[in-house]
Order: sequence, then structure tokens, then C-alpha cells
Amino acid sequence: MRSVAEHQKIVSELFGPPETVRVAVADALGMATVDDAVAAFAMPAFDNSAMDGYAVRADDIAGASAAEPVRLPVVDDIPAGRTGLVTLAPGTTARIMTGAPLPDGADAVVPVELTDGDFSVDHVPDSTVGFSSGVEAGKHIRREGSDIARGDVALPAGTVLGAAQIGLLSALGLADVAVARRLRVVVLSTGSELVEPGKPLQHGQIYESNGAMLTAALTEAGALARHVHFVPDDVADFLERLDEASADADLIITSGGVSAGAYEVVKEALDAGPVEFVKVAMQPGMPQGCGHHLDPAGRRVPIITLPGNPVSSLVSFEVFIRPPLRAAMGLSPDRPRVAATLGSDIRSPEGKRQFMRGVVDESLLPGVDGRLVVEPIGPPGSHHLRYLAGANALIDIPATTTALPAGSVVNVVVL
Amino acid sequence: MRSVAEHQKIVSELFGPPETVRVAVADALGMATVDDAVAAFAMPAFDNSAMDGYAVRADDIAGASAAEPVRLPVVDDIPAGRTGLVTLAPGTTARIMTGAPLPDGADAVVPVELTDGDFSVDHVPDSTVGFSSGVEAGKHIRREGSDIARGDVALPAGTVLGAAQIGLLSALGLADVAVARRLRVVVLSTGSELVEPGKPLQHGQIYESNGAMLTAALTEAGALARHVHFVPDDVADFLERLDEASADADLIITSGGVSAGAYEVVKEALDAGPVEFVKVAMQPGMPQGCGHHLDPAGRRVPIITLPGNPVSSLVSFEVFIRPPLRAAMGLSPDRPRVAATLGSDIRSPEGKRQFMRGVVDESLLPGVDGRLVVEPIGPPGSHHLRYLAGANALIDIPATTTALPAGSVVNVVVL
Repeated sequence: MRSVAEHQKIVSELFGPPETVRVAVADALGMATVDDAVAAFAMPAFDNSAMDGYAVRADDIAGASAAEPVRLPVVDDIPAGRTGLVTLAPGTTARIMTGAPLPDGADAVVPVELTDGDFSVDHVPDSTVGFSSGVEAGKHIRREGSDIARGDVALPAGTVLGAAQIGLLSALGLADVAVARRLRVVVLSTGSELVEPGKPLQHGQIYESNGAMLTAALTEAGALARHVHFVPDDVADFLERLDEASADADLIITSGGVSAGAYEVVKEALDAGPVEFVKVAMQPGMPQGCGHHLDPAGRRVPIITLPGNPVSSLVSFEVFIRPPLRAAMGLSPDRPRVAATLGSDIRSPEGKRQFMRGVVDESLLPGVDGRLVVEPIGPPGSHHLRYLAGANALIDIPATTTALPAGSVVNVVVL
Repeated sequence: MRSVAEHQKIVSELFGPPETVRVAVADALGMATVDDAVAAFAMPAFDNSAMDGYAVRADDIAGASAAEPVRLPVVDDIPAGRTGLVTLAPGTTARIMTGAPLPDGADAVVPVELTDGDFSVDHVPDSTVGFSSGVEAGKHIRREGSDIARGDVALPAGTVLGAAQIGLLSALGLADVAVARRLRVVVLSTGSELVEPGKPLQHGQIYESNGAMLTAALTEAGALARHVHFVPDDVADFLERLDEASADADLIITSGGVSAGAYEVVKEALDAGPVEFVKVAMQPGMPQGCGHHLDPAGRRVPIITLPGNPVSSLVSFEVFIRPPLRAAMGLSPDRPRVAATLGSDIRSPEGKRQFMRGVVDESLLPGVDGRLVVEPIGPPGSHHLRYLAGANALIDIPATTTALPAGSVVNVVVL
């Protein structure tokens, strides 16, 4: 049997390096930049006022006091967005708003609260204003380039864009940005026993759940996922749907039809082609396959064939697909891993690496011994979707381990 | 001045309880359920085979050994999805696939590897099969209801749906699910100094960044956000855009125009109406406002007016809007908070609660003293978008604190 690490390597080789696409900055949330974002101009681009108040030459009001205020003529009114350059003549002042460009000649701003000025909303400044104290030159001025100098790297390549980063790119004047392209993934679930949710179920049938589940997992991972409705265990039908699905896909994921039974549609349809079906020494998720599908146009589309049991399917996705898929989109491949204390005794099959479902405290707060406690939940069987839905961690038990007592330290993947 | 806690309370009162909407399960990723998901049938719904193999009555092969195998006639071939009920007569066996319904009468499954059966893909079972060992009654059978009993709560109300939960709801046969509705939020940014990114900039102008930034923050928070292009500082124009924006909005967020200057369009337009403008004792983010806007149809739409400086704007969103917005969508309101050790000396303005930008180790691994270390970055000024974009934490400094030395323990919000 192939080891988990070997199969991880083989699956990861299906993915190429990230491809670049330009998208509107507003649409780039969660995507990774591929270039350094270099400031084409300094930020701020010009000296501007940090306060609502009066721009002055500090020398002009050096002697001001409450007892002997200095009164200056108000020669201008500068709102934010004023574009004409103005010069403040000695012995005068200009009303100025936060963010408005400082006039040439001015070297300080006095907040309105420290003057007898009136900032009522009629927009007409008083003709003179009194200052009851002096001001230090440079005070209340945001200097050109004090945030970012022209030519500085504002955001390094590889940054995953959140709200603040999108704000920064916009402030740099960028309407679009080069990012790693989201991969388009098609999920094709197979199995004659599957019935679409919402429709009646006969004895012997089950509701199809892998399609919606894997599509959600792919979306969460940052991909553009689409679910093609499951197909019955018919090779010709399967191949037809696969050809259709391949047309605009970067990756195809199938679920079901890869095990050792006599009705394994995926295996039967693809075994002769460039797809390899193997047993991987893990639980759940032993039957695996991957390779390429030649679409009708002759394009090689990577395909990964997951087992049909829901728990096997999602655990296989986590172990084999999510890391290289995210790497191929410039996103961090790995979920956090922590060493945690096992809350109960466990057993594990010899020769198989087991990924047990577990629960860790949501706050990730360590227990009394300073370590997080992980509680295994549910039996090892791969059909217990309930426990998978209740888990927030996978406990990674090495293939050589067959039993561990409560209190053992284990390696935990936090989902 | 109003305290942060008071203003948080007043803003949160603008939000109602979560509203229910039914959506397709496949579209419900990240949304919170409002009802318990009760299993309408047991899962599995019928006893089924856990292996590819042969269904037997255990008694029939009790004496089998390698030396003296028991040979039984193969009377049926049961793939997954077989819907007719069948009964296994004593002294016979049926080929059976993983997940296929166990025939009545059978009480165990023998994996194909422990027989001389052939599971080649031609689908025609051999007419007889030899068993070289006995099997325990009940072996390799997934019992009806062993995952979930009929009537059990499979997922409690309030569960935020991830991939596994979407899989579980699908497996329960649910095509749609009642969830807390996503709120539709419109962002309206104001300021005559603002220029759309990608267009030329004149001296005195800056690129508009709050709209894209707040829209991204809202999207990350789970809301349906839309950005209405900024409007200049013109009251009539602003009110017209506001009326348009209100039509299908659950919440309006403005940025800019709420400070103490003489050109504060938001304040000027709304001060007479049911919007209150206040100073909140915090840094950044002192000028705040909130209330309701009466749309042209007379509907009261909640409105929150944020300050225009990018850092103030996003920090205000984090402190005042994100928690009640998420609560109103059934999502966990709070980001994780940890006690961390300050990496450098800091100062803080007296009487103002400060939210400093900081960086904590991505892995959230504690430092040598067992505590996470947080390093403050950038100056306190609200225009330093660069440092906001580099931060992954807010350091929450109480209003009464004016200085703290490196090594102090501080309260940190992890972004």
C-alpha cells in the first residue's frame, strides 16, 4: 500500500504554480497578490492638516496668550479636496479642514478649539480669528510621505488581501491588481444508490451528500467550485458527463466508484487511461486515484478520484487536495497543527495512518498542563457523517501506532 | 464624551434579532441554522454492508476452515442502490457491495478477500463461492440507525454551516434549510477630495479607499455588501444617493463628513433627523454617529456614520459594527481575545480608549513566558493605512492608561 506522504506528493504534482490574473481590487478579497505593490507616489501625497483649524506661520503667533491674543486676518478657506496651490502670506491665516492641503508658507495648524473661530456650517469663515496661544512649527501637519515614501513596497507579493489591504491598494490608486487565479474545480459524484435531496427515498437508496459537501469545502478553500449532479454507475454516461465537465475545469474531483467492488464506475471508466488507482495506508480513505483526463479537445485535465463514503471523501480532501490546491492559488496550504493531549484512550489499525475526528476547545485555550485537550468523537467507521459534522479537528495517528492511552500527546489538525 | 461601551450598546440597538430565510443547502455555506435539524429517518436508513463481499447467515459457515472450506451457492448479486427487498434463504449466499442493503435473513458479511470469489468488473458473480473461515454474526454490517436514530437532533439550531454540516443536511435529505438571513449593507463614502482609483490625481486629492475596504470587511463578516460610489460634499446630492441606497438596504454605512469641520456633509444632511452625532472617547475613531434614515417610502433604515480617515473607519467598524452585525445574522459576534505581552513601550492619550495596531505571531504560539507577544506597529495617527494593512491584532488600551512599559500584559483582539 502507498503511504499517505507518497500519495500527497503524487497528488500535489498534478498542480502547477499559481497563474496570474488581473482583477478589480474590490473583487480581490481573499486572493494572493503576485507582485509587490509599489507606491507610485508618496502617501500622504502632500502636506495636509491633521485637524480642523487654522493654518499659520508659527512665528506670527509666537507671542499669543489668553491675556494678549494675536488676531490675524483669515485670507482663505481650504476644504479637503482643494486642488489649487495657494501660498499663505506672512501675518495672515487660512481656515483649513482635516486632510486639506497645507498652503505654502504655513508651518503649523492650530485646532479650532484653541481659537475664537467659528466652524458653523454656513461655510463663510470669519474675517479675522484670535489665537490665545502659540504653536510649535510642524504641529498638526501630516507630512508628505510620512506613511509611505514614493517607490516603497506598500504590500509585498504574496499578501492575501483582506479589508485593510484592499483599502491600501485603493489608496495607492490601483483599480485592479495581479493575483493568483482561483482554480475552477468540478465535483462529479457517482453512485446508483444516490438520490437527490428533497426527492423520495426507497429502501436501499441514500441521499447524495458528497457533491454539496465537497463543493462547500472547495469554496471554503478559495476555489471556484461547481457540482455536476451525480450520475449512476454507468461507464458511458459517466464518461459523457466527465467530458462535459472537463471543458472549463482546472481540476475534476469525483467521489465514489473507486473501491474493490464489482460496480466501480470511476475505476472502470478510467483505469485504462492516465489515472492510477491505488490503496493508501490510511483510515478513513484507503481507495484513492489520481491522474489526468483527456477532454474532447485533447487537453489534459487533472482528476482526483475520492472514495464515496462521506467521511472518507472529506478527510481525503483535507489530506490530499486542500494543501496543493491552496498552494496553487498562492494561499497558505496548511491548516494549523498543534500538539494536544488526548482526552480518551484510542485504538488505531496497524499499518494505517488514522485521521480520527476530534473536538478541541473553540477558544484553543490550553488545559491545566498548558496543552490543548482533544477529545476523539464517534467510531472509526467512514459513514458516521454526524461525528464529522461535530468535529473541529483531525487527530493524526501514525501508521505504527495501534493504541494510545488518555493523556498521550497527539498531533492535531485544527479544522 | 461617550464611552466606547455606551456607543457599542447604542449601535447594537439598531439591529434586530436574526431573520429567517430558507436557502438551498448548497448555498448555505457560512450561514447559521435557526432550527434543530431533526433526522426524519434513521441513518443509515437500513442495515447495509460495510465491505465488498458476501452476505451470509453466520451459522451456515460456522465450521469453515482453510482445510475444509464451506461452499455456498451465490443466489443474488446486490449492488449499492438495489431497492427491492430480498431474503437470503438458509444455505445460500449473495454477493454484496459496500453500502448495499443487507438481505433479510443474512446476519454477517464476509469480505471478498476471505473467500475465493471473483470481483472482476464483468458484473457476473460466480455460481458458488468458498469460505475458508467462519464469521461472527453481525460482522461488517452497518446497522440501521447506528449513526443517527430517527427523531434525533442531527445538528442543533445555531450551527454555522461548513462543508461537513452541509454534507450532513444533504444526507438527511434536506434540499433547503432555514438560516439567519444575510443582511444587505450599503456603503456610501463621502468627500470632495476623493478620486476613484485608476483616474488621475491632482494636488490636494486622495484616492477613495474606504468604500472598497468597508465592503470587503462586511463581506468577510458574512454580510451582502454593496459600495455606492462616493459622493462629493453636497448635501442635496448626498441625500439623493442616500435615498437610492436605502431602497433595498438593511443597513447603511457612511464614511466621512462627521467630524468638527465646516464641510461635514453627512452631519449637515442628517443632523436634523433621527441620527445622533457624538464624540466617543477613543483613538482612532472619535467622531461617530448613528440612528435611522427615513427612506422615500417612509421605512426606517438603520444608518451608522463612520469617520473618514481609513484607519478610524476600519477600527470603528471592528469595534462598533462587526459584533452586532454578526449577531444579527446568527454568527459569533466576537473575534478571539487573548492576553498578550507587550513587545515595546507604548503611550496612550488620557481619557481615550486606544485601539493600537499590533502584530502577533501568526501561529498564535506563546512566547517564553507562556504568553503570546504583541508588537505595536506604526504611529497612533489615523491616516497610516500602511500599518493597518500590516497589523493582525488590535491592542485594546483602557482610557485610564497613559503609558505601559514593554512586558506589560495587554488585552489583544486577534483580527
